[in-house]
Amino acid sequence: MTPHFDTVAIVGVGLLGGSLGLALKARGLAGTVRGVGRRQSSLDTAKQAGAIDETFLDATEAVRGAGLIVICTPAALTPRVLDDIRPICAPDAIVTDVTSTKAEICRHACATWPSPRRFVGSHPMAGSEKHGPEHAYESLYEGCITIIEKGARIDAEAAQAVRALWEAVGARVVEMDPADHDAVVARTSHIPHVVAAGLAILASRMGPVQALVGPGFRDATRIAGSRPEVWRDICLTNAAAIAEGLGALTAELQEIQAAIEAGDAARIEAFFEAGRAARREVVGQ
Amino acid sequence: MTPHFDTVAIVGVGLLGGSLGLALKARGLAGTVRGVGRRQSSLDTAKQAGAIDETFLDATEAVRGAGLIVICTPAALTPRVLDDIRPICAPDAIVTDVTSTKAEICRHACATWPSPRRFVGSHPMAGSEKHGPEHAYESLYEGCITIIEKGARIDAEAAQAVRALWEAVGARVVEMDPADHDAVVARTSHIPHVVAAGLAILASRMGPVQALVGPGFRDATRIAGSRPEVWRDICLTNAAAIAEGLGALTAELQEIQAAIEAGDAARIEAFFEAGRAARREVVGQ
Repeated sequence: MTPHFDTVAIVGVGLLGGSLGLALKARGLAGTVRGVGRRQSSLDTAKQAGAIDETFLDATEAVRGAGLIVICTPAALTPRVLDDIRPICAPDAIVTDVTSTKAEICRHACATWPSPRRFVGSHPMAGSEKHGPEHAYESLYEGCITIIEKGARIDAEAAQAVRALWEAVGARVVEMDPADHDAVVARTSHIPHVVAAGLAILASRMGPVQALVGPGFRDATRIAGSRPEVWRDICLTNAAAIAEGLGALTAELQEIQAAIEAGDAARIEAFFEAGRAARREVVGQ
Repeated sequence: MTPHFDTVAIVGVGLLGGSLGLALKARGLAGTVRGVGRRQSSLDTAKQAGAIDETFLDATEAVRGAGLIVICTPAALTPRVLDDIRPICAPDAIVTDVTSTKAEICRHACATWPSPRRFVGSHPMAGSEKHGPEHAYESLYEGCITIIEKGARIDAEAAQAVRALWEAVGARVVEMDPADHDAVVARTSHIPHVVAAGLAILASRMGPVQALVGPGFRDATRIAGSRPEVWRDICLTNAAAIAEGLGALTAELQEIQAAIEAGDAARIEAFFEAGRAARREVVGQ
């Protein structure tokens, strides 16, 4: 059951929005794809790449009559976009987003959107430290874990359509309560980003060490190259879970630091052994 | 000036030793390559792969008459191997190693080796979470930063030969005082490994979260898959610098945790901005 949407509006045509447009077009899932952006130049880039068919500077114009609306703006803007389009979009339009934190936006939608809700929050765990429509590519969502909101007040048809959308572009969909989602991704995504930035800062304090990095450092800190404003917003909208996890990580690091200072070979080896087993378990290898 | 060594002994034919053998053979840098291992099966694997020509279970036999000896054993064994081969290897033999911490092994060599020393410590920043001769490949050292020991009591010809060896297999050589080396790589390599293990442990405590990991987590924790006994030894032989850096990182994480708890958008953004700039500076992009 491949879905088809006559008119899709993608609000925000960066890496995620642009790649979604490319995937929809390439797989014949959409008739017309409308792209919304704040700068005409980004919209033109996305259009030239074939990610969108039409360009709009105003979301309220773009969503009129669209059957599917996907909000791909930075997280801080998403509630406002939802507010702006709510009175305008068709009552049967399916609406979703791609923000990395879900509790806050889903709470906002719950409080403002007609019930049963046809806004269903999504979080495709795709992306990279690159951004902008020039980095968009058609296969971004292939094999990508995508969480969609689970909740009592969601319209069943809308939930089904959002699931079908992500599956049609190649994602593996997991339904989850937004608060549970935020608690887990704090540890599988948000805290790793905080730590990558911390590791880079730590290394840079040694002065000019450019020469002394191997592939391990490059990989471990790749995500420190991500956009600061995106990760600021993620920290602001998932503060409790991130802070709690950082506390737990700090305690863990203090313990291993003590073992290293004590020259406790057995404890150090057990720590690395636990880390290897944990990684295997978490990434499922 | 491509070097040529008639007889090379590689003690330890895992990923690093095996790859060195393959590179030496492929580039015509060696006549005969002797491989030393503790298990005949690993030696046979290395020989079948073309990494070595002859197999030895005893290092003292293999080094007899060799012009170049490269010790590629786990760090904890390296001093003992040095002690074992010292009375046997030719007085003009060039000797080096590949361990990730340099102060301890170079201090040991300094105390035991004839002066001016023809043992010159090396640290090629290559490798991965994989190990064993079956993962060896010829191009491992291409573009790889390799630190070689700088010191007053080193034989100039030996230092030149060790540099030429690494450059001939494609590495970029940096000379450095062993203590300075250890201080820097604590932050560019050792602490990232500790932290990767910590992140994996933290995530695994959320229960079955396999589904909720993206490419960011995979990359950030890839090195948590490394061998526990290798990283135990690295922590034991570079304890002071690693412990000091872990303390600094913990302080950094506690600060950002406080900013997140306070909802301090400006401080959070500045932290990620600093992380991005630091990473760019350190990896030289």
